[in-house]
Amino acid sequence: MPHVQPAQLSEFDLIRRYFTRPVRKAALGVGDDCALVEGRPGHHLAISTDMLVSGRHFFPDVAPRALGHKALAVNLSDLAAMGAEPRAFTLALALPEAEPEWLAELAGGMLALADEHGCELVGGDTTRGPLTLSLTVFGDVPLRAALRRDAARPGDDIWVSGTLGDARLALGDCRGEWLLPEPEFTQVRPRMDTPTPRVALGMALRGVAHAALDISDGLVGDLGHILSRSQVGALVDVDALPRSAVLAGQPEAIQRECVLAGGDDYELCFTAPAGQRDAIAAIGERLALPLTRVGAITPEPGLRLVDRAGNPTRYEGASFDHFAAP
Amino acid sequence: MPHVQPAQLSEFDLIRRYFTRPVRKAALGVGDDCALVEGRPGHHLAISTDMLVSGRHFFPDVAPRALGHKALAVNLSDLAAMGAEPRAFTLALALPEAEPEWLAELAGGMLALADEHGCELVGGDTTRGPLTLSLTVFGDVPLRAALRRDAARPGDDIWVSGTLGDARLALGDCRGEWLLPEPEFTQVRPRMDTPTPRVALGMALRGVAHAALDISDGLVGDLGHILSRSQVGALVDVDALPRSAVLAGQPEAIQRECVLAGGDDYELCFTAPAGQRDAIAAIGERLALPLTRVGAITPEPGLRLVDRAGNPTRYEGASFDHFAAP
Repeated sequence: MPHVQPAQLSEFDLIRRYFTRPVRKAALGVGDDCALVEGRPGHHLAISTDMLVSGRHFFPDVAPRALGHKALAVNLSDLAAMGAEPRAFTLALALPEAEPEWLAELAGGMLALADEHGCELVGGDTTRGPLTLSLTVFGDVPLRAALRRDAARPGDDIWVSGTLGDARLALGDCRGEWLLPEPEFTQVRPRMDTPTPRVALGMALRGVAHAALDISDGLVGDLGHILSRSQVGALVDVDALPRSAVLAGQPEAIQRECVLAGGDDYELCFTAPAGQRDAIAAIGERLALPLTRVGAITPEPGLRLVDRAGNPTRYEGASFDHFAAP
Repeated sequence: MPHVQPAQLSEFDLIRRYFTRPVRKAALGVGDDCALVEGRPGHHLAISTDMLVSGRHFFPDVAPRALGHKALAVNLSDLAAMGAEPRAFTLALALPEAEPEWLAELAGGMLALADEHGCELVGGDTTRGPLTLSLTVFGDVPLRAALRRDAARPGDDIWVSGTLGDARLALGDCRGEWLLPEPEFTQVRPRMDTPTPRVALGMALRGVAHAALDISDGLVGDLGHILSRSQVGALVDVDALPRSAVLAGQPEAIQRECVLAGGDDYELCFTAPAGQRDAIAAIGERLALPLTRVGAITPEPGLRLVDRAGNPTRYEGASFDHFAAP
């Protein structure tokens, strides 16, 4: 590869500029959590692909079982964000060496999560190279039921599932940005290492929610994708953003950074009309998963953040961009 | 990753040991050119994934346009080997830097081939990392029409398309194993850099051929997959293996190495009953693609190589294994 360019393109600019073209045969192409193509009768096939690179998406000394789980989890999360039911996946794997115990653990973590979701490994490729995992997942979604990023409407409530920011809190400790007491780190670490894809929630939100996505790069950035694709804006109450007791015990600046810009929690953010509040509460109860209303979609563009008193608040951080200057 | 193990597993052992399980929902899982899952009405969806790593599958200074072509071509070749019609693909891309001109060329080469085959880019992922491309392709194949590896029958003819060994001949020059005169290198190089997936041939062989695969790791090793999965053997006439004029002009030892063990030509090897010889000749004529009968499937297991006089001949080489000791 040639040298670094002075003005680097962002990851999203890159994709848009060179690889996005209007779809012809597919129902939905590049730019949402999944692509949609013609599927089995009455269904679209939702397809998503994610690549995990050692030293970038996980630490080189990560436990292989956790890595196997996470690699599939982040892909299942894209199906969840679309309301799709997992069906199958492929795995392409580059490995520096073929070390049997390590591979057995990787496969164990991955296939245990696959079994939990009835998602079958149907094909793959293995090669020698810098440790890299690339998965492609397939799921079924009934026609017209997919939760797309471009479907938010003014007046919609904005919801998030679970709690936000714990994965970022754990990562900050690993990176030395802050130091957590051992018991607190132990509590938040699984959110970073072995995230739970919200598959059942995504499927339950078919016909209930308008737009949805999974929060992988941070709420501010990810919600921004819904806003730009739906050509709307949003008002979000930063104090309403759900956080764990561990995160709520941290200094205010760390809390903000974690809930607003922390990726890797893989919770869902979705929008739904106010008339669906009871239905959403019932879904949360059935799944034993907190669902929290954190704001509203507005007709005027832009994301405005306010505190619990309704006063505007500023957030200067940015969501994660793989090609931003280091 | 931990240190190198003294006794390394082969790529195929690896996959079999940790990642192969009996399929439940899918019609065909790990171990053929493509997996088959339920598709649009009357069809299976054929799925294949391949990963290309810099320094292993291509030279780091490869022309990006050729790399874009090849990355998709090797995946389309898996669809061809199954008799599937290309439909869509996803691309996961790890890049050290986001260099616009390089990316434009990569996308150009890839999307030109995609357009030629009506195969739409529907999704992807881009990240920073060691240069790696991982593609997953999807194609349609009518129910019961797929060309599987396990379908060869005793008495079948064995056929190969095009000519074998030119890609290996070019690679040997690049690696300094032998030196070709410049005009000869120029003739064979495109076979290595920009292989042609035999998509139309694969589709034409539906209902004509029994078993098929694409030759990506060398005829001996790849035909071995058909033999073991079909539980049959084969007799192959080494002198009948089709080769270009350039290859036919090389020393005998180089010719043998290239036609028997040379991967990367992406020609198809297929088996068909003798009653289909006329139909196969007609297909070759229509596609302007030489199709050559090189041997026969036998009931007794094992691959026996003979020369044109019918005398047994030995070949000591092996097909490419990504995890064999370097």
